[in-house]
Parts: sequence; structure tokens; C-alpha cells
Amino acid sequence: MGMVGGGRGAFIGGVHRMAAALDGQIELVCGAFSSNPEKSKASAADFFIAPERAYGSFAEMIETEKKLPEDVRMDVVSIVTPNHVHFAPAKMALENGFHVVCDKPVTFTLAEAKELEKLVEETGLIFALTHNYTGYPMVKQAKAMIKNGEIGTIRKVVVEYPQGWLATKIEDSGQKQAAWRTDPTKSGASGCMGDIGSHAENLAEYITGLKIKELCADLTTFVNGRLLDDDGNVLLRFEGGTKGILHASQISVGEENDLNIRVYGTKGGLQWRQMEPNTLLVKWMDKPTQIYRTGVGELSPEANAHSRIPAGHPEGYLEAFANIYRNVAFCIQARLKGEEVNPLYADFPTVSDGVRGMEFIGKLVESNEKGAAWVAL
Amino acid sequence: MGMVGGGRGAFIGGVHRMAAALDGQIELVCGAFSSNPEKSKASAADFFIAPERAYGSFAEMIETEKKLPEDVRMDVVSIVTPNHVHFAPAKMALENGFHVVCDKPVTFTLAEAKELEKLVEETGLIFALTHNYTGYPMVKQAKAMIKNGEIGTIRKVVVEYPQGWLATKIEDSGQKQAAWRTDPTKSGASGCMGDIGSHAENLAEYITGLKIKELCADLTTFVNGRLLDDDGNVLLRFEGGTKGILHASQISVGEENDLNIRVYGTKGGLQWRQMEPNTLLVKWMDKPTQIYRTGVGELSPEANAHSRIPAGHPEGYLEAFANIYRNVAFCIQARLKGEEVNPLYADFPTVSDGVRGMEFIGKLVESNEKGAAWVAL
Amino acid sequence: MGMVGGGRGAFIGGVHRMAAALDGQIELVCGAFSSNPEKSKASAADFFIAPERAYGSFAEMIETEKKLPEDVRMDVVSIVTPNHVHFAPAKMALENGFHVVCDKPVTFTLAEAKELEKLVEETGLIFALTHNYTGYPMVKQAKAMIKNGEIGTIRKVVVEYPQGWLATKIEDSGQKQAAWRTDPTKSGASGCMGDIGSHAENLAEYITGLKIKELCADLTTFVNGRLLDDDGNVLLRFEGGTKGILHASQISVGEENDLNIRVYGTKGGLQWRQMEPNTLLVKWMDKPTQIYRTGVGELSPEANAHSRIPAGHPEGYLEAFANIYRNVAFCIQARLKGEEVNPLYADFPTVSDGVRGMEFIGKLVESNEKGAAWVAL
Amino acid sequence: MGMVGGGRGAFIGGVHRMAAALDGQIELVCGAFSSNPEKSKASAADFFIAPERAYGSFAEMIETEKKLPEDVRMDVVSIVTPNHVHFAPAKMALENGFHVVCDKPVTFTLAEAKELEKLVEETGLIFALTHNYTGYPMVKQAKAMIKNGEIGTIRKVVVEYPQGWLATKIEDSGQKQAAWRTDPTKSGASGCMGDIGSHAENLAEYITGLKIKELCADLTTFVNGRLLDDDGNVLLRFEGGTKGILHASQISVGEENDLNIRVYGTKGGLQWRQMEPNTLLVKWMDKPTQIYRTGVGELSPEANAHSRIPAGHPEGYLEAFANIYRNVAFCIQARLKGEEVNPLYADFPTVSDGVRGMEFIGKLVESNEKGAAWVAL
Repeated sequence: MGMVGGGRGAFIGGVHRMAAALDGQIELVCGAFSSNPEKSKASAADFFIAPERAYGSFAEMIETEKKLPEDVRMDVVSIVTPNHVHFAPAKMALENGFHVVCDKPVTFTLAEAKELEKLVEETGLIFALTHNYTGYPMVKQAKAMIKNGEIGTIRKVVVEYPQGWLATKIEDSGQKQAAWRTDPTKSGASGCMGDIGSHAENLAEYITGLKIKELCADLTTFVNGRLLDDDGNVLLRFEGGTKGILHASQISVGEENDLNIRVYGTKGGLQWRQMEPNTLLVKWMDKPTQIYRTGVGELSPEANAHSRIPAGHPEGYLEAFANIYRNVAFCIQARLKGEEVNPLYADFPTVSDGVRGMEFIGKLVESNEKGAAWVAL
Repeated sequence: MGMVGGGRGAFIGGVHRMAAALDGQIELVCGAFSSNPEKSKASAADFFIAPERAYGSFAEMIETEKKLPEDVRMDVVSIVTPNHVHFAPAKMALENGFHVVCDKPVTFTLAEAKELEKLVEETGLIFALTHNYTGYPMVKQAKAMIKNGEIGTIRKVVVEYPQGWLATKIEDSGQKQAAWRTDPTKSGASGCMGDIGSHAENLAEYITGLKIKELCADLTTFVNGRLLDDDGNVLLRFEGGTKGILHASQISVGEENDLNIRVYGTKGGLQWRQMEPNTLLVKWMDKPTQIYRTGVGELSPEANAHSRIPAGHPEGYLEAFANIYRNVAFCIQARLKGEEVNPLYADFPTVSDGVRGMEFIGKLVESNEKGAAWVAL
Repeated sequence: MGMVGGGRGAFIGGVHRMAAALDGQIELVCGAFSSNPEKSKASAADFFIAPERAYGSFAEMIETEKKLPEDVRMDVVSIVTPNHVHFAPAKMALENGFHVVCDKPVTFTLAEAKELEKLVEETGLIFALTHNYTGYPMVKQAKAMIKNGEIGTIRKVVVEYPQGWLATKIEDSGQKQAAWRTDPTKSGASGCMGDIGSHAENLAEYITGLKIKELCADLTTFVNGRLLDDDGNVLLRFEGGTKGILHASQISVGEENDLNIRVYGTKGGLQWRQMEPNTLLVKWMDKPTQIYRTGVGELSPEANAHSRIPAGHPEGYLEAFANIYRNVAFCIQARLKGEEVNPLYADFPTVSDGVRGMEFIGKLVESNEKGAAWVAL
Repeated sequence: MGMVGGGRGAFIGGVHRMAAALDGQIELVCGAFSSNPEKSKASAADFFIAPERAYGSFAEMIETEKKLPEDVRMDVVSIVTPNHVHFAPAKMALENGFHVVCDKPVTFTLAEAKELEKLVEETGLIFALTHNYTGYPMVKQAKAMIKNGEIGTIRKVVVEYPQGWLATKIEDSGQKQAAWRTDPTKSGASGCMGDIGSHAENLAEYITGLKIKELCADLTTFVNGRLLDDDGNVLLRFEGGTKGILHASQISVGEENDLNIRVYGTKGGLQWRQMEPNTLLVKWMDKPTQIYRTGVGELSPEANAHSRIPAGHPEGYLEAFANIYRNVAFCIQARLKGEEVNPLYADFPTVSDGVRGMEFIGKLVESNEKGAAWVAL
């Protein structure tokens, strides 16, 4: 694996490296860790990468690695830069025959996302998007139960993603993560909703298997002087008559990273919280609620395939994130051996999820600009 | 106290009786417990009421009691009938000089509510509306903390009221509580939102001290053949720029009675759940969340005035309900003695909260009929 | 009902009054609320009791009431004084034909308890002991499930009762509740263990239906200058090979009133906490834990008979306490009518539970004095 | 790193590999993964290890690696075999100049443990014992707060470790993990208490900084035909008068891996649960309990040094385990560079913790054999 971005001081780059390393299936062999060649090389040394494979730019990395022998060169490019620097390296990687793992949102604009989708289709290469929250075992379990009809026809979905870290204007204080996320030239058309609202959308559609058809979005910028939304409340209408609520916030003081979802069907209900991810509450009509837990009892094959250790040994964010990398590795290994991959491992977000996310963000902004009017998605 | 409704088999009548009895300040001395005189008398015997004070109708009760000596006759009429039978006894009670405690929503129509409001104003009598959830000590605490500025300027409010008991058409099976609540001739213009959405509205405005100015409501009837909404999702805009979400449901399978609220200000956040009512989570920026608990530490005088027993001895729904009755009793006693009541006890929902609730319900229905458009409140 | 003790400023007296009033089955008609006749009369007025039935002493109350007509005089004496003043009024009440409800522990000494037990046997009168925690619906449910064999043969019991309010020497600051509880001339041979450890013992034996056969108790007085234990850790051996742990504390800083129990059998496990009393966790081998809740689904008749309101409307400490009074009332009413009481209502702690508790306390002290040696019970 | 044990089908071997890989500081370069050379080689291929470094025995591995150039050969031996096969490879590794990471308990007998301790002292090599639960950030926080005096003088400790997976005789069904743990020739003198009770002891002494001085242990074998204890209840007396309770169980049906601890001091209390490891409850006298969370607010340097990602992104078992490996790596790197390691990273369990654990297990067995008598430790 080669990495674009993620040098010293970055947050998500480290997450990708740990996620890729965890299962021993992927080795970080090269990288263009910074647009500054000096910084890139310094970072490479931190990661025990040979100096000759610490590149000054993603273009240099892709061109050089391409010429290396097949058993030496990287197989996959991991892109962990801010949003506005996803498209170029992803495009070039695909055009040069490398698989891609890309942080979300997939691109800066919808048009770019569609172009990448077309490229993936043409090349047949793997493109994984790290909507990592779908990697949790209990999210897999929820999806499987809904697919199997265990909770009946879905009526209502409530998905929330409150955070509080941007409740004040910390982007002015040099907080790097805050700075680019609140900058429309780096983050895109939306702030909070693009950054985390899109995770909520992805989670809701992934678990329920239903598409949002209409939405009504009331976005707000609460912090004075900020240029992008830092909070959003959205009414949803899914295909088939399911109704929903999605809200996300970065000004909800005291909230950490509380992505959570509740789904109610004609037979039962499901509730999952990212901050206690190994628990799935399963609710029934006139019967006690059940506490499904990672590793306990007869779970779905989908859940079990994404858990590593016995019940009661909590698996967390990095393990869920690692499930994407491990699944990508298994898919690549299968291709190299000319085998079919076990379908349980073929499950990770793709470029099409990225296109969907960009459409969603665009429609949120459109609805909001119309005074929180209903728009079709 | 005399009671209208609440005979054998009723639910909320029993609640009112227990709530009135708990603190030993109010004695149930008479009642018109049923529109059927036989049933009314039989019920009276269950409650150890003298046969001569078991009346066949509320009119008979009010007329007869009025003629009794002052120290014998009832002081207050408690109205616990279905919604469409609130107005007439309330009006007559007020017109004959009796204080009123009335179940919510206050009336069947907004016009009736306004008429009662006018009567209360003219007579100066006490009219308490049992939006009982505002009676919890930790709700008082939340209100006091916001009023004192402890969490700063309010930015966002999320209030939810999910239930699951009407997820199937149990009104067809003879379930009495379900039958009248889903019948537009008894319940009013809205089902779920009138029954419980109005509690959520009352709680949000009570705690924050802010008025809802605009709303956008997407109401749904999920159960086939039902005539009123059984679910509703609402975007809110409060005065001063505060944004909000309110959703209520009676088809959220597996949910019991999970009224809850989260409020986020510029300095902190608050979270309260009716099903664990003695806990108030208080959230801070970059500091640990605090678990405020009924009876622990230095709470507000408002909270302490509405709690009876030491910390860790859980007080519940009936105690919160009883706070309304006790406060009404203290107010009446003060009047009888010609004293001012302690302002801590003058705090209970009134006919004006009832008018507000009827306006809210009307606007929800109007918004929904316009395709979930924004309407001003 | 007539009351002994519980005048102005008392804690448990108010609890007994509210508990007795809640269900409208018992009326407080007289009392000897204080050993000071002036204070007794003043308190009586607070409770709307006729001045002529405000007595200066329990002896006066019992003698005078006995002479009143049957339909006027009290039926039952409620004793809510400190421990050392339980025996005399209880004895006199029984000797004069009155039923008794008595706070726990039943007496100051084991000998007194046994004398009362004998008197109850001889008179056939009702003697209820307010080990109130057994009154919770979910405690009834736990007992029923164990009795029905649902969790198999019991192997292990863990019962805890931590409080923190005596972590400093507040008895020196005039705190009345602390003062008598830490005074060996009023409280008895043990402090913490007598006050709350005995609740834990009662709960464990009640739920499991098993008797403790041996114990090993390490009691401690952590606060300098205090004369009685304020903490105790106990190993238990029950009949049939069940093992257990019981610990109670009044110096566990930050704990409110956290009585809780876990029971493990060959088939399943149960977990209940007094501070969230409407939840019973039911644990299974290789299957999801279930959250049993008051009022949800098909509970045992025992649980349902001790709950008043629908699921999700939390019932608390006073409701559980009231279950004892209501059951006593139903038993007395049945006797008066010459009927058999429904066995569901014949379930409340009796003088024999009191004797058991006194034996338990005695053995704890004996074990501790022997250096925490094993002693038979 | 070279590994002893942990071939295909093993549990803890995989955990060690993931823990070692997570932070990119340690590379698995060789191993003797099985006593069966064929199996060892097959396993090595799974882990992408060169065939020539897949050894048939630990002795072969140590001898061969020793001869490799310094920059090629392994630095550290990771021992993940069952308990009775810890001593020999650990001894040989130390004697040949390799650092050791060893699973717990350190050895089969106390004598072996002491011999290793002596060897470590003589060689100056690093010996880390994977009492992994001390690696959690909130455990570090708890230890730091106690050390800093924030909760005052410790009075009471309650540490529990319930599991339910051995509630039936699954060792007869071919469950490999159960088989050796219940076999006295492989596990040692104790079953449950050796396997998990020793974790509880280690956690309690680590967090409080206090040594257990006396104990009274009631161990039980509940499952018929099993040869070692599967449950144990223990009273503790620490130095300085602190009292405690420790209980562990493998027959507590429905419990997963619920290690938890409560510590009460004169000023405050702490509560931590392994199954929700990013939360530390901090309790105060007459003030609200605080929810300390990994990554939130101003935590101790010790906590922050053992956390990788922002608040609300749950870190779990593998991350805590990885903290041991990362700290070992940092210590080795510092030695190689001739630098002092940052003391924050010098914190991991050592061979001396292993000796302590073996003493503890021995005393538990001794106490139990004497009828649960008090013995000094």
C-alpha cells in the first residue's frame, strides 16, 4: 500500500495506517505523505519506510511504483488528504492500474465523483470509500436482520450525529482539523453535513437498504463568522413510504462523536450507537427488548465475519475501520489468485456510495437555500 | 376534590386519584365517575365515597356541591374524561366558583380552550392542566439552570416522544384507551401529536423558556384504516434563532413512553429522559459530563421543592403528577388563609399552556396538510 | 391507621404516610407522632387529624382507640420510630388486638423479635415489616422466575448495598437520621449492617427462596470516633451449596442508595438495581440478554399485581413501599368480610422476616468479633 | 519479534499479533507457532513470514535467530502458549539476550516465576507480562487520580471479574480454550482464579498502588467433574487498613468478560468497567458524579499517552493490549539509541507482577484448602 497524505500531525492518516496494519494483510511500503517533499520523507522514516519510496508527490509515487516489479510495487493507494485533494490522486491511481482506498466524502464536487465512478467501472479496479461506521459487527447484524425481514417493513428511521467540538470558533486558533473542515475551498459545499451528515445518510441507507427520495433540510451556521453550516436538521422520506429524521451537529456542546440510529419496522425495532458499538438493542412488540452483543449467541454470518475477538472484549473504531482494509485486502488477494472472494468480505463502501453522498450533500444545500423546502433526491 | 370521569376501568382517573392522595393535602369527597349513574355509584364505593356524594353527572355534582356548606363541599374539580368531554365540565365548574384540574389536551377545539382561558381570567380561579412531565424535579432543575444562564444561549433543542403501543390496530380489539385516542370525534384534529406530541411541545417550551415560532410537520398514519396520525416528525424554529426537532410516535415498536429532551447552549448541554427521571445529564465543553441526580448536592430550590425523599430512592411518574396536585392544594390553602403562596409552589401548567397546546396541534395539522410546509405559530 | 412516631422533621414517617395514602385503601386517623405531646398534636394538625385523636403517647393511643366503636377506631398501628422504640408499641398493639406495620429492623434485640413473633402467632394478627424493597414489581418477577425454575439451580448470589452519606462524621453536625443510626443505644448491635445490610439479606433470601447457612463477616468502622460499623463485607454460603457475597457500606462516597442483586443459576442469570427498579436484566447462555420491564409483555402475576400504571411510566420507591400497605389493607379487608385474600396480596414481609434479620445481624457481629471467622446461621 | 505458540486456531496468539502490529512499531519476523513443525510452517505462511524463519521449536528459533545479524534478527520473543509452556521459552530467550513479552500468568509455578524474575534482574532485559487490562487509558487515569490524592485515602475496593462461558462442561466438547484452562496439568493450581482472578488482583493493586496483605477465599467448582475452581469469592485486607472484595467467576451465566472495579476513598470514588472501557465514573461527596471519558478534557498525561484517536471514537481491548507492545517497543528503541525512554511509556506489567500473581494464586488455594480461612500474603 502507498499512502497519499497523512504525514506528521495528521489525524485520519494515522487511523488509516493502524486500520491497514491491524490484521497483518497489508503493508505500508511507500507514500507521498505531504505536499512538502521534506515533510514527506521525514514522515516516511517514522513509518519505517525505505527512503527511496518516500515520494515528494502522489504523481511521483504512482509513476515510480508503476515501474517496479509486480511483487514489489504497491497494490493499492490510500488517499487520506483533505476533501479537495481526493480527486486527482484517485483518478491517477485508477488510470495507472492501482486499486484505491479513499477517505470520505469521495471528492470535492459531484461531477468529480461521477467521473471516478465511471473510471472504476471502466477499469474494474477496487475503489473503497471509508464510510467506516458500516464496518462495525453490530451494524452488519442490523442490516442482516432487516434484510431477513426480522423487523418487518420499515416505517421510521431516526439517525443522529451530534458532536460538540466546533461549538466555538476553534478554527481561528490553529486547530488544523477544524481549519480545513470549515473552509469552503477545502471542505466543499457543506461543513457539518458534508463531514458527518453524510456518514449518517450512508449508515441509514446501508442498514435499511432503502433509498432517500425526498428531503427537507434546515441548516444553520451558529458560530459567528463561520462560512459553512455547523448544524443541520433534516426530514426524510424514503422509497416505499418510510419516514425519517436525520440531524447532525458540531455545536452540540458535550457530545463527542455520537452517531446513532434507530429503525422501526412493523415487527420490531433496532437501536445502535457508535460510542457503544458492540451493543445492538432489538425491540419487540409486547416482549422484552434484547441486547444483542458482538460475539454473543447466534449472530448473522455478516456480523461474525467482522469481529475478531470473543464477546466482552470490546472492539472499537479502529477495528471497524480495519474491516474495510481487510476486506479490500481479501478481495485483492482473491483476484491475484484468480479466485472468487467470499461474499462476506466483498462488503465495503464503494465509489458509488461516494456519488450518493455527494448527491445527498448537494440536495441538502439546495433544500436549505430554498428555505428548507422539500427537494427530490 | 370532586372528580369527573375516572370510574372503574379508566386509566388516567386512577393516576389522578393517586397523585391527589399522595401528599395528604387533598381528599376525594365526591365524583361523577361515569356518564352512567349506576357505574358512577359503584365506582364511588370503590373509592370509599359516601353514596350521597356519588353523582350521576358532572352537572348534578356541581349544582349539589355548590349548595353544601363551605367546609364540606369540594374545592376543586378534577376532570379526567376523554378530550371531547373536558370543556363542558370545566366551564361549568369555573362558572360556579370551583377551581379546576384538567387532563390534557385542555379541550377538543382551540376556540373552547380560549373560552376557558377567558373564564379563568375573569373568575381568578385556579386552572391546572396536567402536563405532568413538567412536575419532575430534574425538569425543574433543567429549567432553572437555563434560566440562570448556566448553559448559555440556547442553540438547539431535540425533543422526542416515542411509544410503540399503537403499532397495530389494537383499537379494533376493544382496547378502550386506544379506541378513543384514535377516534377523531373524541380525540381531536390529531392523534399521536395531540396525545403526546403536545407533551413534547410543552416540555420543550417549559424547560427552555422559548416559544416556537415556525414549524414544518410531516405527519403519517402508518396503520391501515386508522383515521388520525400515529407518527410525526417536525422541524422547529424558536424565537431568537434556536433550532429544533420534535418527533413523536405511537408506532415505534418496543418503545414504552420514552419522552426525552436534549438542549444545547453556547456553554453547555442538558439531557433528560422521563423513563429515568431522576437523572439529568449536564454536558460541558472540554470537561466531563456531570450526572445531576434528584436529591444529590446543591440543586436549585425549584428542584428540591418537588422532591420528597432522599437521593437514590427513585421518585417516578406518580410523584411528578402529584406535584401538580400538591402545588394546586398549596395555592388553594394560601388563598383560603389569605396568604401569598411560596412562588416555588405556584408552578404548574395552566389553561394558557392548554391554549398554546391547541394552537400547536392546529399548526401541525395545517403544516402537514400543506405538504409539510413551514407555518408560523 | 394510627401512627407511632413520624412527627415533623422525621424522614421515614412521611414515607409511611405517603405509602399508606397512595392507593386510597388506608386512612390515617390518629397518631402519637412524638414522645412530646405538644409536638405530637402539632404534627397531627399537619396531617389533618382531629385534635382529639392526636395522642401524647402510644399507650394513650392504643387505650383510647380500643374503646372507640369498631367502625371508627383505627385498625392498624404503624410504627416508625427509631429501632429501640419498636418493641413496646408493637407489643401493646398486638396485645390489644391491633394489626401492626413496623419499620425495620423489627426490634432492638433478637429476644424482643422472638417475643413479638410469638405474640403474632398467638393473636393471629397481621404484622407487616417494611422491608420495602421486596415490594417492587421486578423483585416479584425475579422471585417468580426463580421459583418457576426459569434460571435453573442457583449457584451464586451477589447482593450489594452501597451508600456514601456517612463517609464523614455528620452525626456530630446534628443530622438527626445519622445521629440515631450511629448510636448503639438506639440502633442496636450493628450500624451499617443493621440498617441496610439487613435489607440486602432480606432481598437475597426473598428472591432466591434460599436460606443463608454460614457467613464470614469483615465489618469496619472507617470514620474515626464512630461506635458502630459503617461498612461490611460478607461471604455467604446458602443451603444447597449456593455461594454468595453480601456487602454494604455507608462510606462509599458518591453512592446514593444502590441496593442491587445478581443471581446466577445453571440456566440463566438475573440482575436488578433499586435505583432503576423497573428493569430486570435476564441473562441466558449463548443468547441475548433480555431487558424485562415493569408492564411490558407477559410478566408473572406476582409482578403485575404490584404495578399500577403502564410501561414506561416509572414507579419508584414510594410505590414499592405502598405495595406493603395496600397488601396489608387488602388482607384486613378480606378478614373483615370473612373472605380469603387473593394470595398475590398476601405477600409482604412479616415478623418472622424480622426475627431472621435480627439473627443475621447477630451472626454478622459474632463473626466479626471472631476475626471474620465462619459462623453458622 | 518472534512468536512462540499462536498458530492456526489459537486465540491469544492472534490478539498478540494484532496488538503488536497496530502501531507500526513492531514487525513479526519469525516464529515457532506450534510444537508441530508442519503446523508451525503453515501458520507462518499465513502471517507472511519467510519460510526459513518458520521454526519447528522455540529452541530452534532462539538459536538460529541469535546467529543472524543484529539488524535482521528478532529483538523480542512473544510467548503465547498455554501456561505450562511459558517458563522454558522465557528462560531460554532471556539467557540468549532477547527481550520477552509473555502472556499471563507468568509461569506454571511460583518457583519458576521467581527464577525468571532473577534472570531478568541479572540480564537487565525487558520482560513484559500482558496483564493487558492495565493498558486502558481510563485505568491509567484512575491510577493517576489516586496517586495524586484526588480521591483521598482509599478505604474500600470492590473488584469483580464475572464470565459465564464455562457454566457447562464445554471442555468435554473439544473447545480448545476451555480444555487447557480446566486442566490442572496445563493451567496450574487454580482454574478461574488463576485465569481471570489474577487479572482482578493485578488491576486492583495497579490502580490503588496498595498491596493485599491478607485474604480469605471461598473457591468453588460448580460444574460436576471439573478439576479446578470455576468460581471464587474473596475478602481482602490491604496494607493501611483498606478493605476489599474480589470475586471472579466463569459460571455466571450471561456474563461476557465483565472485569470491573470500584474504589472508594475519603474524598471520592472511582468506577471502571472493561466492557465500556472509555468511561471512568468519578464520584464525589454531595456533588454530581462526573463521567470521565477517554479524550475528553484535561486528563492525566498517563491517560493521554495511551490513547490514539479523538473522544467518542471507541478504543477497545486490542488498543489496550497494543499499549503494552508499543511501550515495550519504545523502551527497546530507546535502549538501541542509548536514550532514556519517556517514563510515560515505561509503564507495563513486568515479571514482578507475574511473581505477585503467582503468590496471590497460591494463597487463594491455601486459604480455600483451610476452609476459607484468613491467610497472609
